[in-house]
Amino acid sequence: MKVEAIDLFFLQVPDFDPLRDPVKDTLLVRVRAGQYVGWGECEAAPLVSLMAFVTPDSHSTCRSVSASILGQRLEDPSDIARITSLVQQGCANLLQMPHAFSGVEMALWDLLGKKRQEPVYRLFGDAAVFGKQPYVVVPFGTTPIETFTRIHKLHGRGIHAVKVGWGGFGHGDLKSDREQLSAAKEALGQNGRLFIDAAQVWKDDPAAANQYVPMLKEFAIEWLEEPFDPTALDAYATLSRTYGRHQIAAGENIHSVAEAKRLLSKSGIGIIQIDCGRVGGIGAAREIAGFAAHQNLGYVNHTYTSHLSLSASLHAFSNLPQFELCEYPMDETSLSWKICQDHLLLDSAGLVNVFDLPGLGVRMDIEAVRHYTQDLEISLSGKPVYRTPPLEDVS
Amino acid sequence: MKVEAIDLFFLQVPDFDPLRDPVKDTLLVRVRAGQYVGWGECEAAPLVSLMAFVTPDSHSTCRSVSASILGQRLEDPSDIARITSLVQQGCANLLQMPHAFSGVEMALWDLLGKKRQEPVYRLFGDAAVFGKQPYVVVPFGTTPIETFTRIHKLHGRGIHAVKVGWGGFGHGDLKSDREQLSAAKEALGQNGRLFIDAAQVWKDDPAAANQYVPMLKEFAIEWLEEPFDPTALDAYATLSRTYGRHQIAAGENIHSVAEAKRLLSKSGIGIIQIDCGRVGGIGAAREIAGFAAHQNLGYVNHTYTSHLSLSASLHAFSNLPQFELCEYPMDETSLSWKICQDHLLLDSAGLVNVFDLPGLGVRMDIEAVRHYTQDLEISLSGKPVYRTPPLEDVS
Repeated sequence: MKVEAIDLFFLQVPDFDPLRDPVKDTLLVRVRAGQYVGWGECEAAPLVSLMAFVTPDSHSTCRSVSASILGQRLEDPSDIARITSLVQQGCANLLQMPHAFSGVEMALWDLLGKKRQEPVYRLFGDAAVFGKQPYVVVPFGTTPIETFTRIHKLHGRGIHAVKVGWGGFGHGDLKSDREQLSAAKEALGQNGRLFIDAAQVWKDDPAAANQYVPMLKEFAIEWLEEPFDPTALDAYATLSRTYGRHQIAAGENIHSVAEAKRLLSKSGIGIIQIDCGRVGGIGAAREIAGFAAHQNLGYVNHTYTSHLSLSASLHAFSNLPQFELCEYPMDETSLSWKICQDHLLLDSAGLVNVFDLPGLGVRMDIEAVRHYTQDLEISLSGKPVYRTPPLEDVS
Repeated sequence: MKVEAIDLFFLQVPDFDPLRDPVKDTLLVRVRAGQYVGWGECEAAPLVSLMAFVTPDSHSTCRSVSASILGQRLEDPSDIARITSLVQQGCANLLQMPHAFSGVEMALWDLLGKKRQEPVYRLFGDAAVFGKQPYVVVPFGTTPIETFTRIHKLHGRGIHAVKVGWGGFGHGDLKSDREQLSAAKEALGQNGRLFIDAAQVWKDDPAAANQYVPMLKEFAIEWLEEPFDPTALDAYATLSRTYGRHQIAAGENIHSVAEAKRLLSKSGIGIIQIDCGRVGGIGAAREIAGFAAHQNLGYVNHTYTSHLSLSASLHAFSNLPQFELCEYPMDETSLSWKICQDHLLLDSAGLVNVFDLPGLGVRMDIEAVRHYTQDLEISLSGKPVYRTPPLEDVS
């Protein structure tokens, strides 16, 4: 069979309120080939990625993403590798490509799995997969009590690992930051696991980060994420010497395998966090996970979108038991949660497992997708370049 | 004054023929502040960059490019640095940003120069500027005679430096490749200077490149451009040891200062080629040129677009006399040539100089811009997000 259509849906919360809604928008990708349909999701900047699919070709290294995919043979995994390579060549001068392609790559795996009646990990040849302990992202509350309450609620739902951050953390008020961490730790209880996202608060200043090291040790923080700007490699190296490489994490913005390998090889970062919807899809994420394993470094997914994306992320590293955590979106009020019918729920041991179902194993909730889908029209010289496709004929 | 408007124009050759037209399309940016207007040009993928300006904001590190520019104070050069920093923060997850921002950055300098009645290089504090010897890009002909004829014609117009490439060069037929170089050298005459763009023909194989080294030396090729894929850093390092670092050039696809510094520091590349319309504008290009000078390495512009872009490129390194070459687009039949009223023509010594005029010193040919401008409409939920703005009120 051949790739016959790439349909794009721009979804947006109609009356978005940043205080209420954790996610504002997304770009869903539906691929059709033969009698099959596959779904994927792109992070971030939905409309810019959408335009990367539908733009007329510019010069020979600046073609649309679709141009290298539509009409291509899709029978086995090597076809997806070949399509990836075609897209990389045709879009060498289209910066948005990795974000746009990630969603279609997921959809190609989903579709091929459905055709072969196999979960995606099997298409990669994995004999066994391993459950991951979920950690949930929790912004600090405005008070320690609010932080406690947020985490305690999750604890009651079986979540024993939490990543905290933001809310002014790291700006130098050590007393107040200590109270926040203390509240978080208390809410998690005895076996709780705590991580911090520093959200680049110390820019390029390792001394500012260093003064927090005793506190990080006191609360047994398992990793510190993005203490510095992504380009502050010297600061990363310095902190790595005092704090330990295996407790420094970064990488969510990475959008190529080469960039990820460089980050793991040339910096003081010990855990790489890869967003499957940004890095180029499951194949790219998987190559990075394999590289991290080979270097005895850490790997974890970065997922702030739907359980379709979460499923794609897990198929990239469920074969590697040493990477035993996963970032786990569980906000049931979000657009991201609602657009899926199926969610990767915790098993009896509190772990998250890939579905043993064809493809990614997640059915979209078409009514919810319809609810959020926006009417978009792009026309050039009076001719339509893009118009939101109908959802009705979806299987 | 404040930045009041960013107007975007998508230009396309109406009946594009790749055999006839060297350029298919472009994105022009017009910025307005107070009574002033500035112009800039983005490379590449015009519609994708256009969408990066007009998209509604997604999350906090994924805002539109415009959101961080419109309404900002624009009185002196530090405002442009501040705006650049705001855009980098607001668009940390908008991959297309550097290509989109490059054009508006040029336009901000153009506008500020017009207000101050000073050329852009003076806004950077340069006391003196130096002319550059132009080299022109010439694809090999299908026969050595055709190559000779193409270059001989340029020679008659005062061009004594040429960069050749493509047409199957480097695929292993050394005899035929030798004949092509011989024809090029003959057409250029005694003081001719010859460069080769290998267009990544040897992928990651230094041995394939190495067999060409005797020929490159025989014809005194001054540099070999992009012998390998951009990620094949080991191949670059190997060739660098046999052929010499100062004769290996690359970098046209670079889109950040950090990436450029890394390429110059960690690879076997001795000459960096920077496209001002891709790298983030004049400020970014200038920082890279300064870094290259400091490391005793080479710098040259990559310009395949209009003389507006050429002017912007030159303001980034005209202060540095050691970088004595410039890539020079001179195809008068191209869209790129026609959209400008003013062109940077060769002086009596055969050199190209920046205009000593306010801003970038290049007036757009509004009739030509109108001829190529396409009607584009983007609407979301029935409301217009973008519509090609009128050209009439341009100054």
